[in-house]
Amino acid sequence: MTDTNSPSPSRRSLLGWGGAGLALGAAAAGGAVAMARTEDDTAPAAAGSAIAFHGPHQAGIATPVQDRLHFAAFDVTTDDREVFVQLLKDWTEAARRMTAGHPVGEGAYGGLAEAPPDDTGEALGLKPSRLTLTIGFGPSLFEKFDLADRRPEALVDLPKFAGDNLDKNRSGGDLCIQACADDPQVAVHAVRNLARIGFGKVVIKWSQLGFGKTSSTTPEAQTPRNLMGFKDGTRNIAGTETDRLEKFVWVDGKDGPSWMEGGSYLVARRIRMHIETWDRTSLQEQEDIFGRDKGEGAPVGKAKERDEPFLKAMKPDAHVRLAHPDSNHGATILRRGYSFTDGTDGLGRLDAGLFFLAFQRDVRKGFIPIQRSLATDALNEYIQHVGSALFAVPPGVRDKDDWWGRTLFSKEA
Amino acid sequence: MTDTNSPSPSRRSLLGWGGAGLALGAAAAGGAVAMARTEDDTAPAAAGSAIAFHGPHQAGIATPVQDRLHFAAFDVTTDDREVFVQLLKDWTEAARRMTAGHPVGEGAYGGLAEAPPDDTGEALGLKPSRLTLTIGFGPSLFEKFDLADRRPEALVDLPKFAGDNLDKNRSGGDLCIQACADDPQVAVHAVRNLARIGFGKVVIKWSQLGFGKTSSTTPEAQTPRNLMGFKDGTRNIAGTETDRLEKFVWVDGKDGPSWMEGGSYLVARRIRMHIETWDRTSLQEQEDIFGRDKGEGAPVGKAKERDEPFLKAMKPDAHVRLAHPDSNHGATILRRGYSFTDGTDGLGRLDAGLFFLAFQRDVRKGFIPIQRSLATDALNEYIQHVGSALFAVPPGVRDKDDWWGRTLFSKEA
Repeated sequence: MTDTNSPSPSRRSLLGWGGAGLALGAAAAGGAVAMARTEDDTAPAAAGSAIAFHGPHQAGIATPVQDRLHFAAFDVTTDDREVFVQLLKDWTEAARRMTAGHPVGEGAYGGLAEAPPDDTGEALGLKPSRLTLTIGFGPSLFEKFDLADRRPEALVDLPKFAGDNLDKNRSGGDLCIQACADDPQVAVHAVRNLARIGFGKVVIKWSQLGFGKTSSTTPEAQTPRNLMGFKDGTRNIAGTETDRLEKFVWVDGKDGPSWMEGGSYLVARRIRMHIETWDRTSLQEQEDIFGRDKGEGAPVGKAKERDEPFLKAMKPDAHVRLAHPDSNHGATILRRGYSFTDGTDGLGRLDAGLFFLAFQRDVRKGFIPIQRSLATDALNEYIQHVGSALFAVPPGVRDKDDWWGRTLFSKEA
Repeated sequence: MTDTNSPSPSRRSLLGWGGAGLALGAAAAGGAVAMARTEDDTAPAAAGSAIAFHGPHQAGIATPVQDRLHFAAFDVTTDDREVFVQLLKDWTEAARRMTAGHPVGEGAYGGLAEAPPDDTGEALGLKPSRLTLTIGFGPSLFEKFDLADRRPEALVDLPKFAGDNLDKNRSGGDLCIQACADDPQVAVHAVRNLARIGFGKVVIKWSQLGFGKTSSTTPEAQTPRNLMGFKDGTRNIAGTETDRLEKFVWVDGKDGPSWMEGGSYLVARRIRMHIETWDRTSLQEQEDIFGRDKGEGAPVGKAKERDEPFLKAMKPDAHVRLAHPDSNHGATILRRGYSFTDGTDGLGRLDAGLFFLAFQRDVRKGFIPIQRSLATDALNEYIQHVGSALFAVPPGVRDKDDWWGRTLFSKEA
């Protein structure tokens, strides 16, 4: 098999993604998944730095949290179910290649000069960087393609929460792609190439870059700090905690519907922080609000970050106290949020905060009760939720013949 | 000396930046630079990952390009020269600490509970990450503080170039801070804390995050790719090329004014790329436009990226040909640009491109002739300059008693 990282003009295929979707039209795109390709071609380009794409669950959930994020919500613009299904297959193949560190298509460059390159090229020569691509389906998708009766009960319309100030241009979406990688250029490249493959079928509704992870799913790691300078969510579910993953994250066969078995539900919330106000708050008040000390991250009265918190030692409106499972009938979520900074607003204030991402088996027993409990959170004076979305995250792609969403769209599933 | 990375409540100083600027007022801030501190306290927290702050030139110019950028342009809001000079001193001290991997102030956390923490905290526990902080002074600063007769001749008002579509909200600024680091959280933390120290004296006018470097100043390194998937500026000036730095980057004593000796001039241009259009362009056209092949980055007709280009083999409007020193009477600049992606515009297109940063001894012999030459660049169909700024970058801070801008503001200089 050719090394896709060296020029191989003779191997470039007319059926590559770029040529297919854009230069040759939808008919050719239909043949794209039939491209001859050996197993070697999708093997990791650099061992140890690629995350397996195939599995019972999608990667990017229990996977140790990567450093950077590019998240994109799409709206579907085609009303042709077959075209959309073909897109999901094309996306799957591209995701399979990119997560392994390969460019999209066989002839990313050095190939047929008359067609656009299959791959946009900015990740050529970069490592796989633990790229994961995770797809989710929003409630509005189920109003299309005769999917209404397949919408999961758990895929609710999120209620309005106290303090919400949601921008519809940063909320919702028929589907989403979460791209996480240790190199932001790899994550941005992935979203861009998926958007390109989807040209004329889907369009990006909104997107968000995250520059720093705020959660860890690795038990031994320190919890990273958010932009308020605090560790938060220190008892996050670790990717190795099979029991808690089964209990709180993965949809079970009896949860229904069957097509979601092995999947999860993703809540995305863009939480703007009033950074400048926060920075003028005394250390004592900051620590009271979180219910932790700022340096170590230990709960009030304790010495270490991971010490079991004594909730009654905290103020009644402390963040840790209100968010803790003991205050919410055991409600537990897997957090995977990222810090963002999107420049400066018209008043010279940083447009910065937390892009909150949480996975759970059922939002009605996860994010919703926790967020309701946080209605009295002392932190609310310093934050505002300005974007919101909920997605049903289907199970993983099992093997090279499987594709994203098959269990939803296949008649037999 | 205390380790500032462990809680040391007794050492927290009332004169720390946060307390000084915000809680205690300007009078206390005036005393902040007099804080007792030993040399140890500003030594790099982790050897090998901190860049020296002191030197004849500011770091962040010839320094090997770091992975990430946070760039902020400020406007001055105080009209009190002494207050502004004190701010420059306070900023210098904070920059000295942060580039060495220390938090701002002595008692960043664990300290006096009644005052805001000296440091916002989100970089606690992170490595210095080769952070550099580089200050520049814009033309408009010289309309203040009786500086008019000290404005360098070379600090011109940039002319309007063909195709410019400049947004005034992304252009200009009385001064700028370029923060580069291998960890974006470290760069963001630095700009945020400088903005915080400057509260009431300066305000951020605009800012830009860059997620991927597009230039290298390390001779052996591959040139990183821009978001068009191409290597560009491959014969960039390397940080080790003393001769070319002297000739093209550092202001000489006879260039004038004397306060700029050892400094440089920084051009910042926000260049939006029409990514989606570019991605639909054939490989041949892309390669013709740049004058390189996409895979290796070799000039037309050559085999390797660094092979000397034969300009006449390229189309007359090829980017490499028009930008090459041989087409511009030898004009040469040091490039330090970064790719940016700032979400999506209202049409679902990525707001992405190149945040171009170039340092030169004199823009009238550097950026201006090159950019004029690029008026006929074939690339212009796919890009648009939407932001622009020029700054005089003063010489380096020599030692712990020196401060940013001393040569400009001191009577004796």
